[in-house]
This record gives sequence, structure tokens and C-alpha cells, in this order.
Amino acid sequence: MSSPPYPDPGSSQAQELVQGDVLAAIHAPRIAIEAVQPSLDHGRFAAKAIVDEPVIVTANIFADGHDVLAAAICWYDDEGRQHREPMHAVQPRGHDIYQGSFTPHRVGRHGFIIEAWWDIYGSYRHELSKKYQAGIPVGLELEEGRRIIVQAIECNEGELKEALEALHERFQRLGNEAERVSLLLDGDTAKRMEEADARPHLVHSDVLYALDVERLKARFSSWYELFPRSETDTPNRHGTFRDVHRRLPMIRDMGFDVLYFPPIHPVGRTHRKGPNNTLEAGPDDPGSPYAIGSEEGGHEALHPELGTREDFRNLVRVAADHGLEIALDFAIQCSPDHPWLSEHPGWFSWRPDGSIRYAENPPKKYQDIVNVDFYAEDAIPSLWIELRNIVQGWIDEGVKIFRVDNPHTKPLPFWEWLIADIRRRDPSVIFLSEAFTRPAMMLRLGKLGFTQSYTYFTWRHTKQELTEYFTQLNESPLREGYRPNFFVNTPDINPYFLQSSGRPGFLQRAALAALGAGSWGMYSGFELCEGAPVPGKEEYLDSEKYEIRPRDYTAPGNITYEIAQLNRIRRENPALQTHLGLAFYTVHNERILLFGKRTEARDNFILAAVNLDPFEAQEGVFELPLWEFGLPDDATLQGEDLMSGHRWTWHGKWQSLRLEPWRQPFAIWRIRPVHQAPARIPK
Amino acid sequence: MSSPPYPDPGSSQAQELVQGDVLAAIHAPRIAIEAVQPSLDHGRFAAKAIVDEPVIVTANIFADGHDVLAAAICWYDDEGRQHREPMHAVQPRGHDIYQGSFTPHRVGRHGFIIEAWWDIYGSYRHELSKKYQAGIPVGLELEEGRRIIVQAIECNEGELKEALEALHERFQRLGNEAERVSLLLDGDTAKRMEEADARPHLVHSDVLYALDVERLKARFSSWYELFPRSETDTPNRHGTFRDVHRRLPMIRDMGFDVLYFPPIHPVGRTHRKGPNNTLEAGPDDPGSPYAIGSEEGGHEALHPELGTREDFRNLVRVAADHGLEIALDFAIQCSPDHPWLSEHPGWFSWRPDGSIRYAENPPKKYQDIVNVDFYAEDAIPSLWIELRNIVQGWIDEGVKIFRVDNPHTKPLPFWEWLIADIRRRDPSVIFLSEAFTRPAMMLRLGKLGFTQSYTYFTWRHTKQELTEYFTQLNESPLREGYRPNFFVNTPDINPYFLQSSGRPGFLQRAALAALGAGSWGMYSGFELCEGAPVPGKEEYLDSEKYEIRPRDYTAPGNITYEIAQLNRIRRENPALQTHLGLAFYTVHNERILLFGKRTEARDNFILAAVNLDPFEAQEGVFELPLWEFGLPDDATLQGEDLMSGHRWTWHGKWQSLRLEPWRQPFAIWRIRPVHQAPARIPK
Repeated sequence: MSSPPYPDPGSSQAQELVQGDVLAAIHAPRIAIEAVQPSLDHGRFAAKAIVDEPVIVTANIFADGHDVLAAAICWYDDEGRQHREPMHAVQPRGHDIYQGSFTPHRVGRHGFIIEAWWDIYGSYRHELSKKYQAGIPVGLELEEGRRIIVQAIECNEGELKEALEALHERFQRLGNEAERVSLLLDGDTAKRMEEADARPHLVHSDVLYALDVERLKARFSSWYELFPRSETDTPNRHGTFRDVHRRLPMIRDMGFDVLYFPPIHPVGRTHRKGPNNTLEAGPDDPGSPYAIGSEEGGHEALHPELGTREDFRNLVRVAADHGLEIALDFAIQCSPDHPWLSEHPGWFSWRPDGSIRYAENPPKKYQDIVNVDFYAEDAIPSLWIELRNIVQGWIDEGVKIFRVDNPHTKPLPFWEWLIADIRRRDPSVIFLSEAFTRPAMMLRLGKLGFTQSYTYFTWRHTKQELTEYFTQLNESPLREGYRPNFFVNTPDINPYFLQSSGRPGFLQRAALAALGAGSWGMYSGFELCEGAPVPGKEEYLDSEKYEIRPRDYTAPGNITYEIAQLNRIRRENPALQTHLGLAFYTVHNERILLFGKRTEARDNFILAAVNLDPFEAQEGVFELPLWEFGLPDDATLQGEDLMSGHRWTWHGKWQSLRLEPWRQPFAIWRIRPVHQAPARIPK
Repeated sequence: MSSPPYPDPGSSQAQELVQGDVLAAIHAPRIAIEAVQPSLDHGRFAAKAIVDEPVIVTANIFADGHDVLAAAICWYDDEGRQHREPMHAVQPRGHDIYQGSFTPHRVGRHGFIIEAWWDIYGSYRHELSKKYQAGIPVGLELEEGRRIIVQAIECNEGELKEALEALHERFQRLGNEAERVSLLLDGDTAKRMEEADARPHLVHSDVLYALDVERLKARFSSWYELFPRSETDTPNRHGTFRDVHRRLPMIRDMGFDVLYFPPIHPVGRTHRKGPNNTLEAGPDDPGSPYAIGSEEGGHEALHPELGTREDFRNLVRVAADHGLEIALDFAIQCSPDHPWLSEHPGWFSWRPDGSIRYAENPPKKYQDIVNVDFYAEDAIPSLWIELRNIVQGWIDEGVKIFRVDNPHTKPLPFWEWLIADIRRRDPSVIFLSEAFTRPAMMLRLGKLGFTQSYTYFTWRHTKQELTEYFTQLNESPLREGYRPNFFVNTPDINPYFLQSSGRPGFLQRAALAALGAGSWGMYSGFELCEGAPVPGKEEYLDSEKYEIRPRDYTAPGNITYEIAQLNRIRRENPALQTHLGLAFYTVHNERILLFGKRTEARDNFILAAVNLDPFEAQEGVFELPLWEFGLPDDATLQGEDLMSGHRWTWHGKWQSLRLEPWRQPFAIWRIRPVHQAPARIPK
């Protein structure tokens, strides 16, 4: 671990050691490559990327002296094919920052390293040009250039050698200094010499930086959650997969593209929960779908009252016809009636009295649920394999999206293995992490492979809270490892804010979620502005987790129209299809949040203003970000209200706005310089 | 690099692969250890530490579930001996941050890893205590506790086994629940069980984090630079080592502890520079000492006019008697007369016309200097070994501190090897990096082993600039890898600010340097407020680099007294012996900088205010940092003016101050709560 004590300086042992050390040093990388991005924990985990979108790679690259360095990204696609893209020093020069990019065209695990080397001809060219322009005699420099070419001729062969020989001959034929300088500074010459470069002191980054390349939906998705059993007209009749069909057009018309179901497996009977999480269920109470498993089967089975396997397959197909992907819940927990308890008792940890510890997630208690023990002697590896097979089984049924319940209470290496194993066969599979816990754990799950993650969004309300949180998500390491999915509510979370905000609060939160992140989600009832709580708690009264809850989705006061508009605007504006590319702007009102979402090229620029006060109208003077387009403070911008379609021209940096909660507590404007063509709208 | 294509799911090859993968996952670390500090580039480089001072280690440590984890630092001293210190969860809990510390008592290369494991008994104890306090029946839990003890008995032997058996017997004998609970929650029981713990899921950090432990002077030193040849009464007589003796008491009395000389080797004749960097030297011009080497010898030799080797040895000894360590300049460059050019022509890179390229550091040109080529075929490894031997030769003469000239123009692996090689034999050797270049390179040199570094301090003047720079130096990664030495001037840098600021500017910069960093330095003439420039340049007129410059160090207007006071205050206050532990406080004046330097324990707390305006008096209301002592806004603090010795009591948070440049442009106060004893003053 530590170095051995050093031998006597005079001894032969010392001589040998020193010689060995110095030779190692002489062959050590002369060029430093530092601060490589995207990277997570020094390449230990894969950073996140999207297929067909450029991956921008940056690094600090430097060495002794003032010579010019060259660098390249050497990247590997999911089949191990090698590709190369150049890197260039980024302005402002003098800070050793190099940048390049590559675009993966396949989903799956990719990787890259960075190469750097001494750019002999580049350095020479730089010096020659500087001296020549300064009027210094360059006779000696020209001879040096000629020798570099001769050396390149010696080191190369074939066509390139011939081209270099021709170059050398041309150089020799040229009579005067000016022509010779011009030939050596010529772009074609530089290109040839670059090809011929022996790349001295070639080094590469000391790790392979892994990348998980996923499909676009990994970053841009709109989730709608419903309990299929509630798709009925009366609590007395259990809804079915067939009943879900009639909802598909409405969900599609609201603009969602993921339809997510809580567990659809057989529900246990033992300790079944009654309405409002009571410990005694009546004979007709359906129980919590999270109490998985009964004599009718476990995680691989369907709850019989929902329908047959054929019904499920049919629903997956028809939903797809509506542009909706079905997402299932992967909740690794068992009702006491799960077949595993009798078939695999060794997968559980039994207490001295012959019982199994029931699940706790303090302060919550789940008396109807017991947990497997991943490291029990008999569970290794059969439980792990079985769980993987269950996921694979649903993939085989056409499900490619899984919302994973409480992943932070299951071993981290299990998720890393499971996700890698699944994605190796089908890299289009998406996993959403439902972990509400400490920040390091939430990020770690993203690093391990979870595509998307639930967030703290639900508990961020003030201008400062939202600004800090959105900013953090845009910075390393979250930027590389954690893709937020902003859920505005869940069956477990009836946010305090919405319990009293009324309709304006629902509109405000929908706008913040839909515009703040590339992925957002809503649990049914939100569009009806449902918010009745268990008094004093962040839970829904008469929670659908324990009851069948039919709803009238056309009830007055719903916000279906606004949700549909938000999702349409998201589809039409690439800047809104990610949580990245965000900036906050000044508005002189603490109750108004003003932020921009913009593409790297600034060809799609959305400005969003949200009134954070659900009761009072708020107004304020704000700063139109003219500088983002390189425009002066008195310039002109085209504005377009994406909710109303209204267009206008703004003159100058300071403008004012007013947002009335009872009308529409947010504004979404697309802005562009007057000379810029409107953004192409993808279909 | 990338994963191999996955075989058909059904095949036996696939089965095998999956099985292998899952077993690897099952044995992979269950506990995550992240964000370990101190660490540089994931352990690739050694972080900096000081002997006999605690190294505080932090990490994020977490795993699935809610059980209690335990962690320890396992550290290795320079001889590879293993030690262990516990880590504890840091408040606020719930963010997975663990902290511990250890104190190395030897200089040299150390290292540590972090271990973490599932704390079985700790988890059990936590649960038992919570349930018992909540009044829940714990009969089953008590039986579980008994079984944990039985298991521990089975796994252990000797004395511990006997103690556990006694514990078990005692538990069995106890009649009632309360007594049993009390026994199992008892501290002694916990300690025994901790010793007996099988440490399931034990993991350790995946790298060894290296530490370079150095002597205190690495972090706390006060440098004085002089040209020995100028220690004379007339430019016509070359000063000698013997002449330096008479200056030693004065330098000691100013409170310096490092006396640094620019190169003291034979000066070349060819292309020798004349006064003010002119290309033609007269016969009596001494030339730049950086043009090293003549027929009288090279880097291993002494310039004959300075004296004999015995004179040098004597000076080193006598300086030590005055508490002054001699630091030499290590400048790897040659005058065209250096013996190496004839003895080792293969160490240089020759141009087509038989000349060697002279040194350039654009825009500066050094026509009297040529550079070696570290990677020339003939230089490997003989040049590297020779350079190491030169450093070792001066170490053998008693020199333990080297200021290295322009290290950023020599190969990075060369420094990493040389410093490690030297420090392996003598870890007390200190290297100061004189690199004024891009930030990444400056930090890299620190990472490679340079003890201290020149900084951008000289070019930071405004409140914002100083605040940003000082803050940056206190943050990762600079905090771990870069120890600043704030030089107020150098023979190469006559700061623009001081060219017109007059005496108050010199006092202001001395205070900022001496209070801002643990190490600071001054080049002679600063104490006389010398600032005459080459017009328009940041250079001294009649630069001592090219001339013998005797001075009257008692000239009126000198700031010798203030410098002595600053260095005395530094010696007496541990908080000032480092650039760390710094905080800025509010003062309502943009021309006043107010900052604190304080020990971790807050038992030494210095408050410093500096007027950044050398011409006008500045005053302002400022915030006395009562909260740093946990005091309310209306509390009382003892203040002590460390320049004047005056003491007083401050009441309340808002106070005011006035700083007059013509009197003393800074204030240095030691503050402490009224109840706290004065800090012990080290001798």
C-alpha cells in the first residue's frame, strides 16, 4: 500500500530501482487529460445519452510548453465498433478546454476514451505563421518545415507517401519565401500532414467512459396513471382491461404517451387492507394492489377480475394504436398469500415465532405486505433469476416500460445487474425509479441504470426552492446521471399545496411539471382537481389504493383542455423535451417564476412565466433575455403565445407581465429574433 | 470495451453467462461509498496533509433499507503499518454523510481506504429502543436479540467468546422484560457486540486514497528573497555569501523563516544580458543568474564570485542559527556556455543551422538561455538522472527547500518522478512551483507533488476578485491539491498596483498576503516600497536580474516594522498558519475587505479588515460574526487589536470601522466570547 523504505542511495538495489522508476516516468503520459465529461464517478457508471442526439464531450487537455496539442474522441458503439471524432480547443483559449461531439445512432451501452497527442505540424504551422506575420526572417523555419515533411515521407507509405513526396517536390520547385510559406500554411498541406502525423506522445484517458444510449422516450415522455379496476361506472363492479379501452382516446387527446398501471397481479387476502388503510377489509373490499400474490398466482400472473392474458395483450396492442405505451409497476413484495411463501420459504427471513417481518417504510406500515430477503442462503441466485425472469416475461408481452416501486429498499447490485441484463437483450426498456429518499441514493439509482426517477418536485413550491432544484438538476453530477420525471401527484402523494389551492394550483403545478422537465406524470383525478385529504396528511381521502373509484372525467372545472395544450406545446418544441437547457431570468416579483428552455443552437426558445400564488393576480417587470441571441438591450424580438397563438413584437429588454390565477396562472411564449425563421415544427 | 453481443436467451451459453453475472452481482458491494474526501482525481494523486494534524475524512455511505451501517478509516503510514479509526454519521442525519479523522505522526506518503459494513447489533439496538419507547410489546424482539448473541458466541473465540457467554447467561437469568431490554441496550453490551460483529457485507472504497504528509513549513512559511551578489555597498563590487551574514539578523527580525536565493551557479557569457534586459552586456555586467553554466561549471557548481563551497555551507549553518532555512532556485536551463552543450550535445535539440533554439515564454525572450530536450534519444534517462542528482547534491549540502523555475515548461511525468524520488529518501524536502499559467496546469503541478505554488494573488485587487480567489483556494479540488504561497512581488513582477500606490499599497498587499495564506513571500526592495517600473510594463526599472543593486534597508518610509508585526501575529495565531478556515463577512463598503480566519474549534479567531484603496480613508458598518460562536445578535465579544495590543468589548452584531491608508490600511483583531479563555500562544 505504501512505498517500501528506500534502500541506501549508493547500493545497486537503489540504482536498479531508480532506473526502473525513471524509465516508467519517461514512458508515462506526457499529456494530462482531466475533468472529462460526460462522466460519472470516474467512468464507474454510465452517463445518460439519447440516440441520434450529439454527445458533447469536454476535457481539460494540456502538457508542458507552448506547443499545439491535438485530441480526438475515440468512441465505441454497442457492438464494439470503433469511431473517431476530432476535438478542438474551446474559446476562450488558454484554459486548456477541448470539446468535440459524436452522435450514436443505436441504443445500448456505448463508451468513449479521449486521445491526445503532440501536434507536430500544427505547432510548426502556428510558429511559422506568427513569425512570418511579424516580419521575422523565416529561412531557418522553412528548412525545418521541409525536414518535417521528409520525416513524414519516411514514416508513411502508399498514397499518402506519394502525396507527401509531391508536396516536397512542389516546395523545392518554389522560388521565393512567400510562396513557400503559403504552401506550408495551406489548409490542404495541413490536412495531409495531419494524416501523416506520427502522433508522438499519444496518450488516452485512463478509463473508458461508459454511456447508456436510450430511445427518446427515456428523456421525453408524458405519463398518465390509472387503476384499471376503477374503470367502471360503480364501485360495486370491478373494472377490467376491456373497460380501459374507452379511456384511451381521452388520454391520447390529453397528449400522454405512457399509460401506467399500478400492480395488476392477484391481490392477497390475508391482512387485506380496507378503505382508508384500515386493518380490517370487508368481503367486497378489493385490497391494495401492492399486496401482490394469492393462490391465483404471483408477479407473473394477472388479477383474474381484471381479465385474461388475452385481454391484457389486446389492451397493449390497442393502446399502442392510440400512441400509448403501457407501463407496469414492478413492486418486489408479497402478500402473505403469495405462492413464494410456500414454494420458496427460503427466500424470506423468518422470525423466531414463525412469522415474517412485514414491510415498514417508517412512518408508514404495510401489514399486508412481506418482503423477500435477497441475501438469504436459499435466495442466491434463484430469487434474483426469478425476478429477472418476471420482468422478461412482461417484456415478452410487449411491455417496455417499468415503474419500480421503492428500489432504494432493495440491494443496489441487484438493480445494476437486472437493468444491465435486461437492457443487454433489449436496450429500449425503460425503468422509472420510485425512490423518495436521500439525495445520494436517488442519484445512485440513476447511475446504476434507472432511466428516469421520481423527484423532490412535489415538495418544491417557492421561487427559491424551484430555482435551486431545477438548477441542481441541470448541473453535474445530476445532469449526467439522473433524469427527472416530474409527477404532480401519485396515489401516495396528495400534495398539501393542492389540498387548498383550488383549480389555479393544479394549472400552476401542471405547467411547472410539463415545462420544467422532459418527462412528467399525473395520476388520474388530477385533471379533475381532486385534492380531498386524510385530514392533516399528505394522503388522499378514500384512497384509490384501497377502493374502486369510478370518476366522471368530464366533470365541470376539469383542466383537460389545458393539459392537452401543454402536451401539444411540448411535442412541438424540442426545447421542452428535456429538463436541460434551462435558465432563470429576472422578474421583479417573488411570486412569479420566469425561466427559459432553449436548444443549444437557440433555434427553439421558450420563455415560461408561472404565477406561484394560486389566489392573487401577480404582475411584474421582467428582463427579456435579448443577450441570449447576442442582441443589444434595445433590440426587438418576435413573441408568440403558445396557448393562444397570438403573435407580437417586443422592443427592448424590460417588459411587464400580469398573470391571473382564475384565468391562466402561466404564460408560455416562443421567442425569436426578427430575422430568424420560425422553428421547424416536428410532426 | 463494449459488452459482447448477447447470446440467444435460451442457449446454454446464455444460461452460463447469466449465472456468472448474477453471482458477480450477488458478491458485489452492497454498500455504496461515494464522494470520499480528501481525494484528488479518484485517488490518482496524493492529497496534502501536515504531520501531527488531523486528517478529516468524509464520505457518503449508504445501502438499501433502513438498517444502521458502520464505517471506519483504515489508514497506512509511510512504512505500511495499518491503523483504524471509526467514522460516524454526521448531523444532519439522513444525508448519508460519515466522518472520521486520523492524525499521522510521520512525514511521507500515507494512504487510507474506507470500510463499511452492516451493523447488525446497532440496527437491532436502534429498533428495540424505538419500539420499547413507543410502548410496543418486544417479547419477539428480545428473543431475536438473544439469538444474535448466540450467533456471535458461535463465531468468536477466546476471551470475547467467554464474555458473550456470560452476557447470554445474565440475559437468561433476568426475570422481566424491562431488565432484559436494559441489558441489551446497555453501552457495554453494545461494545462487546461491536467487537464480536461478523461485519456482514463488509466493503471498502475501491481505491487507496494517497496522502502526502509534510512538515508544518509546507503550509506555514514566510519567504524572503534576495540576490546574494547585491549584498554589497557598491555596484562595482560583487556581493558574496559572506556578505549575506550581516543581513541575517534583520531578516530574522522581520520574522521570515525561509531565505531564498535566485540561482547561485556560474553565469554564462555568450549572449549575456546587459542592464534592463539589453542584448549587449558590458564587460563588467554580471548577467542574469538564470543564464546558468559557464566553463566554471553548471547546476552543481557555485558562481566563483559568490564564494567557495565552504562559504556556502557556512552560510546555510549560520542562517539556520538565525531560524532561517536557505531555499535554492532550481531552474532547468542553460546558458550557451553550459558544460552540458559540449559534454552532452544529445540532451539538446539542434536546428538545421547548428544552433539551439533559445528559450521563449511569449512574449518574453531569453536569448541568453537554451533549454534541454527531455525526450531526446540521448537524454533518456541520463538527463533525468543527472537533474535528480543535482537536486540531491544540494540536499546533501543541507538545502531542503527548492523554488522551481517555470515547472510548467518541463514534462509533468518528470516532476512526478523527481519529487517522489527525492521525497522517498527525505520527505522533509519542500518544492515551490513557480508556474504562472493556466489554472488546470497550476493545480496539476500541486497534484504531482509540489508542496507550494505561486498564485494569481498578485493580480487580484478588488473586493470581488479577492473574495472569489480566496474562496476558490478554500474549495475542492484546490483545497486538497494546491497550497498557495502569496508572493507580493518577485524580480519578474513589479505589480502595476504598487507602481503608483505608494507606501499604503505596500502595507495593504503585505497584510493581504500575510493574513490570506499560510505561506507568503517578498522579494527584497518591497520593504522599501520600491516600485519604479520599466514604463508601461510590469517589470522593475534597472532590474536586479541584470545588475548588482545594493540598498539601504534602513531608508525612511520602509515598512520593516509592520512586516515584523505581521509575521509575529502569524506565529502567534494558528488560524493564520494556513489559507484554509477562511470566511468573508459583510461590510458596507466596496473598498473594504473583511474576512475571518479561524481554527476548526474556533479557539483562535482572527478578524481582518483591509482598506483596498491606497489613497482615501474608508469606513463602514460591518457584521461581527457572533453566529460563528453560536451567539445571538445582541451578544458580547472580546476584541483585541493584534497590532496595538489594545483590548475592548463589542456589544451586538453591527459595528463600524475606519481605515486610514496613511496610518495603517488594515486592522487585525482577535475575537473570542467573553467566557472563553484567551488562546494558548505557541512559542
